[in-house]
Amino acid sequence: MNFLQIVSIPQAVELLLSVDGGPWSGSERVRTADSVGRTAAEAHFAAAALPPYSRSTVDGFAVRSCDTFGASEQAPTLLRLCGEVRMGCKTELAVGPGQAAAIPTGGMLPAGADAVVMAEYCEQAARDWVSVGRAAAPRENAVLSGEDAAAGETLLARGARIDARAAAVLAACGLAEAAVQTRPRVTLISTGDELAEPGKPLMPGRIYDCNSTALEALCAEQDLQVCAVYRVGDSLTAFTEALRGAADSDMVLLSGGSSAGAKDYTVRALEAVPGGEVLAHGLAAKPGKPTIVGRMGRVPVIGLPGHPAAAMMVFYELAAAYWRQRRQSADTRRRLLVRLAEDVHASPGRQTLLLAELLARENELWARPVYSKSSHIRTMQRADGYLRIAPEQEGLRRGQLAELILF
Amino acid sequence: MNFLQIVSIPQAVELLLSVDGGPWSGSERVRTADSVGRTAAEAHFAAAALPPYSRSTVDGFAVRSCDTFGASEQAPTLLRLCGEVRMGCKTELAVGPGQAAAIPTGGMLPAGADAVVMAEYCEQAARDWVSVGRAAAPRENAVLSGEDAAAGETLLARGARIDARAAAVLAACGLAEAAVQTRPRVTLISTGDELAEPGKPLMPGRIYDCNSTALEALCAEQDLQVCAVYRVGDSLTAFTEALRGAADSDMVLLSGGSSAGAKDYTVRALEAVPGGEVLAHGLAAKPGKPTIVGRMGRVPVIGLPGHPAAAMMVFYELAAAYWRQRRQSADTRRRLLVRLAEDVHASPGRQTLLLAELLARENELWARPVYSKSSHIRTMQRADGYLRIAPEQEGLRRGQLAELILF
Repeated sequence: MNFLQIVSIPQAVELLLSVDGGPWSGSERVRTADSVGRTAAEAHFAAAALPPYSRSTVDGFAVRSCDTFGASEQAPTLLRLCGEVRMGCKTELAVGPGQAAAIPTGGMLPAGADAVVMAEYCEQAARDWVSVGRAAAPRENAVLSGEDAAAGETLLARGARIDARAAAVLAACGLAEAAVQTRPRVTLISTGDELAEPGKPLMPGRIYDCNSTALEALCAEQDLQVCAVYRVGDSLTAFTEALRGAADSDMVLLSGGSSAGAKDYTVRALEAVPGGEVLAHGLAAKPGKPTIVGRMGRVPVIGLPGHPAAAMMVFYELAAAYWRQRRQSADTRRRLLVRLAEDVHASPGRQTLLLAELLARENELWARPVYSKSSHIRTMQRADGYLRIAPEQEGLRRGQLAELILF
Repeated sequence: MNFLQIVSIPQAVELLLSVDGGPWSGSERVRTADSVGRTAAEAHFAAAALPPYSRSTVDGFAVRSCDTFGASEQAPTLLRLCGEVRMGCKTELAVGPGQAAAIPTGGMLPAGADAVVMAEYCEQAARDWVSVGRAAAPRENAVLSGEDAAAGETLLARGARIDARAAAVLAACGLAEAAVQTRPRVTLISTGDELAEPGKPLMPGRIYDCNSTALEALCAEQDLQVCAVYRVGDSLTAFTEALRGAADSDMVLLSGGSSAGAKDYTVRALEAVPGGEVLAHGLAAKPGKPTIVGRMGRVPVIGLPGHPAAAMMVFYELAAAYWRQRRQSADTRRRLLVRLAEDVHASPGRQTLLLAELLARENELWARPVYSKSSHIRTMQRADGYLRIAPEQEGLRRGQLAELILF
């Protein structure tokens, strides 16, 4: 073990990635509507052109645009009606020179026609004639086949997080199911003699464990599945037993107290299990210093700081970053460049992570740090995200720019 | 029926709210970690103070702060050790004048002590003495009982959407379960002879129905549950049958073609079912004009425009707004004031809704409209949200401010 080896956040992620991954792999097929929030297991392609045929975007008359050039309300052009396009059918109509066909919104553009004139600019003159009071440019009020997606085009890259709009695109291309990555299985181990389970009576000197709940919710948000939650006291036996039980999961998140004693327990327990190893003993981040990075055989292990806000931010910086890399997902967190509403102290040599709230001033974005004692929990609710201040910076003055990552 | 009665977006929401709500009500209890994304059915309170006892936030020595005043590295103060606080237990220790007690992070502050000096500023001098090299202000490195939440304080208002941080707060206050509103049940009816079901073969002249998938995903995002999906052709019988089947749901969303014919069908079907009534026939919004607002007995009905982007924005403006009111939820959509990167045309008298992408220029937020033909689907994916331009405005110039609602 490398005693008190403190690593940077990127180094910590690299160390976790060096663990040669656990058993996680594979994909499953789910209903497209249920794929929202999941991660694409493979690239998804358009099997056919979208739209599959050239369509009208209005109710009106399909025309050869050149026949309408010069037409106006004062000098309409008379075209011969050659028929009516029906919805949901392949049309056999062909619009010849001087002809027009009635067409509903979404109707298939007949052969020969290259534009549509809206119904309100047309008047059916006699039974077979329509008076067109407006010129149509080529392709006006029409969507050509393949204009939205060409056949074979990539709709979704492997690793993409699927949202409602992506699901709609898959459905539009006829995909009833999406291939999504199985959710990596995460074991949570909360440690500390002082922790009580919510819902149970609270003995004096105890507090309720909230990190398990927060981490389970954060895992769900990151498309990870919590497969087991252990809550153990400060007993090496109980701790190592929980670790052994987690041997077949894809990641172990330890959430211990922040005391020196609790940290020692984590290290000792990790060294007591088969394949257990501490890879780094401290993170160059504030908060986050007591973070431990380790492995248990092929399973990456993160010992998170005990304070809830710190645990949440380190989860985003290490666990979420690790899984983005493993899953080939882009970083889609919304980042805003904000101006600081007050001076901010930073810790040189450490990545400063600071809860902050957004302030809108005209269209300039400002942010104000949300300070609180480190064990406060409700403060987190006031924050819109967190500021990341680089290790090179000593601090920032009011009015300077900083990066805010939105929750 | 009020023929062609066009209403504003707020009027449409009012009309929907006038329908005297469907059978929706009630609440259910779910595990706190599973309550994320749900809506609180009642206010949630802290049963006891948080933290339940005054605690140390560091490893060190609990002291009476006045005993340390004037202490420094050069001139440390010697205090007599009266014991050690153990984690997870009620401490019986009392720190008298001139005394100190060893305490771990999270340990219970003993009676008499009002601050903690970090271990690194202290040195155990003889067996029972500790040399304190730094003065502690009252409450330094300590969190007092109730500082995070007082007993009885509101943690969560009725109607609040629960996120990971709110769930953590509930758990910290010992709540293993949260009382959430049952999900209102929404029936989706997609209509149009041209619509095919994703996964099935596509006949010529047909397109795949993507609005059902998009609306199901949007409903899930808004904590609504799709209880049934009907896909019917342009047949009055099939349409009215689907409507009858939806009589016990809490909302019906119709998603038809945008053709005049499809609109007629919606109106005729709605008037053919028991209790069916069209309340407004058109929305003063662009896009969104062909929207229909109606009722079927106590069930509010929205006939959405057929184009996917329009359907999505009108869903947010009407359906989501309606449920926020019914559920007493605040509008928590993230709105940004952005500067327009190009001139934007608006339709006076109509609320303009315009897909747009965010552009970051320094810390000023700019946005550019994402234009596309109305039936395009993939364009939606490029947008970060949509601009809302008030009916009073004729248009906005490049550089003017506008409101962007983020997806």
